[in-house]
Amino acid sequence: MPVPEPRQCGQSCPCPGLRTRLPVLRWLPRYSLAWLQLDVIAGLTVGLTVVPQALAYAEVAGLPLQYGLYSSFMGCFVYCFLGTAKDVTLGPTAIMSLLVSSYAFHEPVYAVLLAFLSGCIQLTMGLLHLGFLLDFISCPVIKGFTSAASITISFNQIKNILGLQGIPRQFFLQVYETLRRIGETRAGDVILGLACLAALAGLRAMKGRLPRAAPAEPLAARVSYLIVWTSTTARNALVVLFAGLVAYSFQVMGSQPLTLTGSIPQGLPAFQPPRFSMATPNGTIPFRSMVEDIGVGLAVVPLMGLLETVAIAKAFASQNDYRIDPNQELLAMGFANILGSFVSSYPITGSFGRTAVNAQSGVCTPAGGLVTGALVLLSLAYLTSLFYYIPKAALAAVIISAVVPMFDAGIFRTLWRVKRLDLVALCVTFLLCFWEVQYGIVAGVLTSGIFLLYSIARPPIKVSEGDVLLVQPGSSLHFPAIECLRDAVCSRVLAAASPPRSIILDCRHISSIDYTVVVGLAELLQELRKQGLSLAFCSLQDPVLQVLLSAELEGFQYFPSWEEAERCGGAEPEGGRSPPFTSTSETSLLPAGLIQ
Amino acid sequence: MPVPEPRQCGQSCPCPGLRTRLPVLRWLPRYSLAWLQLDVIAGLTVGLTVVPQALAYAEVAGLPLQYGLYSSFMGCFVYCFLGTAKDVTLGPTAIMSLLVSSYAFHEPVYAVLLAFLSGCIQLTMGLLHLGFLLDFISCPVIKGFTSAASITISFNQIKNILGLQGIPRQFFLQVYETLRRIGETRAGDVILGLACLAALAGLRAMKGRLPRAAPAEPLAARVSYLIVWTSTTARNALVVLFAGLVAYSFQVMGSQPLTLTGSIPQGLPAFQPPRFSMATPNGTIPFRSMVEDIGVGLAVVPLMGLLETVAIAKAFASQNDYRIDPNQELLAMGFANILGSFVSSYPITGSFGRTAVNAQSGVCTPAGGLVTGALVLLSLAYLTSLFYYIPKAALAAVIISAVVPMFDAGIFRTLWRVKRLDLVALCVTFLLCFWEVQYGIVAGVLTSGIFLLYSIARPPIKVSEGDVLLVQPGSSLHFPAIECLRDAVCSRVLAAASPPRSIILDCRHISSIDYTVVVGLAELLQELRKQGLSLAFCSLQDPVLQVLLSAELEGFQYFPSWEEAERCGGAEPEGGRSPPFTSTSETSLLPAGLIQ
Repeated sequence: MPVPEPRQCGQSCPCPGLRTRLPVLRWLPRYSLAWLQLDVIAGLTVGLTVVPQALAYAEVAGLPLQYGLYSSFMGCFVYCFLGTAKDVTLGPTAIMSLLVSSYAFHEPVYAVLLAFLSGCIQLTMGLLHLGFLLDFISCPVIKGFTSAASITISFNQIKNILGLQGIPRQFFLQVYETLRRIGETRAGDVILGLACLAALAGLRAMKGRLPRAAPAEPLAARVSYLIVWTSTTARNALVVLFAGLVAYSFQVMGSQPLTLTGSIPQGLPAFQPPRFSMATPNGTIPFRSMVEDIGVGLAVVPLMGLLETVAIAKAFASQNDYRIDPNQELLAMGFANILGSFVSSYPITGSFGRTAVNAQSGVCTPAGGLVTGALVLLSLAYLTSLFYYIPKAALAAVIISAVVPMFDAGIFRTLWRVKRLDLVALCVTFLLCFWEVQYGIVAGVLTSGIFLLYSIARPPIKVSEGDVLLVQPGSSLHFPAIECLRDAVCSRVLAAASPPRSIILDCRHISSIDYTVVVGLAELLQELRKQGLSLAFCSLQDPVLQVLLSAELEGFQYFPSWEEAERCGGAEPEGGRSPPFTSTSETSLLPAGLIQ
Repeated sequence: MPVPEPRQCGQSCPCPGLRTRLPVLRWLPRYSLAWLQLDVIAGLTVGLTVVPQALAYAEVAGLPLQYGLYSSFMGCFVYCFLGTAKDVTLGPTAIMSLLVSSYAFHEPVYAVLLAFLSGCIQLTMGLLHLGFLLDFISCPVIKGFTSAASITISFNQIKNILGLQGIPRQFFLQVYETLRRIGETRAGDVILGLACLAALAGLRAMKGRLPRAAPAEPLAARVSYLIVWTSTTARNALVVLFAGLVAYSFQVMGSQPLTLTGSIPQGLPAFQPPRFSMATPNGTIPFRSMVEDIGVGLAVVPLMGLLETVAIAKAFASQNDYRIDPNQELLAMGFANILGSFVSSYPITGSFGRTAVNAQSGVCTPAGGLVTGALVLLSLAYLTSLFYYIPKAALAAVIISAVVPMFDAGIFRTLWRVKRLDLVALCVTFLLCFWEVQYGIVAGVLTSGIFLLYSIARPPIKVSEGDVLLVQPGSSLHFPAIECLRDAVCSRVLAAASPPRSIILDCRHISSIDYTVVVGLAELLQELRKQGLSLAFCSLQDPVLQVLLSAELEGFQYFPSWEEAERCGGAEPEGGRSPPFTSTSETSLLPAGLIQ
């Protein structure tokens, strides 16, 4: 049951522009009771997943735990009105929490400001249609980053499983300190953590074996299917609930072997603009200094947020056969982060795990998000006192079981087999991410960007030597490539034992050229003419020919194919027998039929 | 008489690597008396040009005038040993002086440090073979920059022609102040300045009409030719000498209507390392702060320096039929700037005007630079007291007549005709250069870079609809383009009234693919299979086919041509009649004869 396409409700809505910008108008007029039922069930299921995850991810982000819940509802509400994918749920995620921990310095004021600024940047990118910039984050960079993140996030939680306190956040220091203080491990935390991990892994495995839909069998079988389905889908909530009961029992008995979450302030966050300066004991930090402190995070956080959302939306749109509008997704993300920052949210993005839960629960429209958001608000208003008893080891188990599947060991072998050059970008990203996440991503994007630029500046050029030198660039000529082409031609002409009679430039793979290339070709023509050689162009595509004709190059001659160029060209370049099509002021109009 | 190619002296020199790095070894063993004669004449001619220019450019750079001379000899000496082009002369130039004025804040310490750091960066780029980065400065950006620079540099000298003092350096303020204070114009300066401009323009025009070589006529005709040739070639020195004599006469007569250069410290600069901190009345500025003050200049100055040198070297190499090694030019520039900073030089680069003078004087080897450098050293040692009398208006005329020809008004019309998109980069660079030179260049490079990246992320894709959907990307598929291809295919498949039977991807223009593209194609295959559609590849180039085979895509099938794909493909993608070449583990080896 996909979100209906615009053309299906074309009659009922008079303004198509508004419907594009406010996708809720596409499905709301046709909303039905059957959809409501499924949306409510899916919304509740996602809600049961998001509450324990929100608490755990706030821990990853290094913020007080209530900020996880503050971040979990506004995204659902906003996406309901602005989103174009029915399955996507916005909220805190493991990756985004890791990024926030790098840029917010454990200060909620920084985290909320970062959400606001990220939202503004995402909104601007959406309005300027800059979504194409996301395409420059290549697959090896994403894989390197997620694999490294799954290791660092998991290891970051080991201290909670072991019950250790005061471990530093930097990965290498963390490994060192954790190993050094392994003797201080608390038995209760370890036993509970491992039990929770085992339970989560078991429930996850059960879910994988479950048939996709309830079998058409007797009621008892269907009820038992429903119980299994619910307990595997809401396994995070179940495990945390169970661990909380264990901790509460110990508390009642008067001895507490577990490290608990502790008290979380009750009540909804105030609706207020984010703070643009921060008061500290040493004076106020002004807005400008805060922005400078966040630094490159202002590029990394919004871009990774968009990337995650768009990737997830595309994946589920493809799985469930509907299409999304990437630029509208940018706008939805931007608004969600800006409005989120008014309720003390830290930066949010699309969550892969919860989106999958949503889809599997059979959600019909983004309205399911309203139910999820309401459940989070209810928890904040009434349940935070119960969160006191949640053992930290249980939350750590929830995170570890969520991020471990992100590690992809096979990618190294695959890249070695398929494209070894891409292994460089992968390794640069992967290794530097252990040092600092942002350095890894930026270095990875730069590495793949430099390879990309190098391949554009040095395209493959095929040269067949002989009486006539046939030069064929293997791809389009952009301005950085013209020097390379000139060098290729000139070095062959100068190095040849007997200089060729003429040179033919086969342009079949060139789809467009710019002014720098035109200037370079003009200089090449002139250079060759000085050596008494002619240069003929062949197999020109239409737009390329038009540019070359409009430039009125001196001595420019072209042929439909290189065979013809070889037969006609080459002789007396300065006058004499004239080649069939020479650029003069009369032939500036395109002769029909010459273009391939 | 080009610098001999390495293979020509292959027997005499046992170490080819050393000869590549020290090109002097290529020509020194064959040096002759005939060459010496021509080199000395050329060196003296260039020397007579560089001395007045050096004083004038130091004024543009906002430095004490002796720094122009300090910058004029080391480049000649270093290039003699390390350069690969016989004509190029390194030294201060108008453009580089303008850049230095933006980054050195009129402080020699900054300027010398900038020369040192630029040299280090250029040397590193040469050692890492990063010369290809220069190709990313496109023609419209260079044209926009030089045209704007010719206007700002000329206008900067108007104040000296008018005899005004204390005019600010920022272009718009300068225009405003110059116009406001036009009433304070000093008649003597204006008359002398205009006379010098007229004389320089006249001599320049004469030079243009001069035949290239001395006619084979009686001695008197040849002597008169030589006189005219010398006076037109050394016109800068002549005009400055004449103006100095006029000023000296006024001085002797006791009234001075001209603004004079004033006293310049006599003597050679000390050979000492550049200073890495600066003492001011308010305390010492440490190295780190100096580097931060220079900021983006550390990228702009070395890159523009390299660009100018390489462009000039290539132009004259092409004109005089020899080849240069761009990476060796980088090394030569780097060493020249580093060693220059030890004698208080500011950043230097190849000078177009003096290189042209050098070439026209018939220089045979870079040894001509030794004579030029010696002449500059002689001036510094003995002639600076005479420079006192040089009127500032005469130096201004020298600069204006050197930079005005750099303005190219026709480029705007040409770009409008040939490629309008490039006009954007030109205008951005041109306009922003009036505000701040560095902003103009950086914005221009970014603008043309964004257009370049956009054209890579959104390549032209030709789609022929019908029973079979034929999709043909117009150029290579780099990773940012795969999303665009997937969208093009999916949107056509979903939008079609009757979905096509199968899809053929014509890869004739694709010369290489990376892992991200492979993943995207795999997802596309899967997506289409879910719709019951098959996707066949055709006209694959060899490297592309090998990558696709090594990736072992599920359901991958390929054909030599699209006609064959159309005939065979499309039917039952999941089994049944099997297409001719399907990727299985057995066919991972390349079947011969299938590759175009």
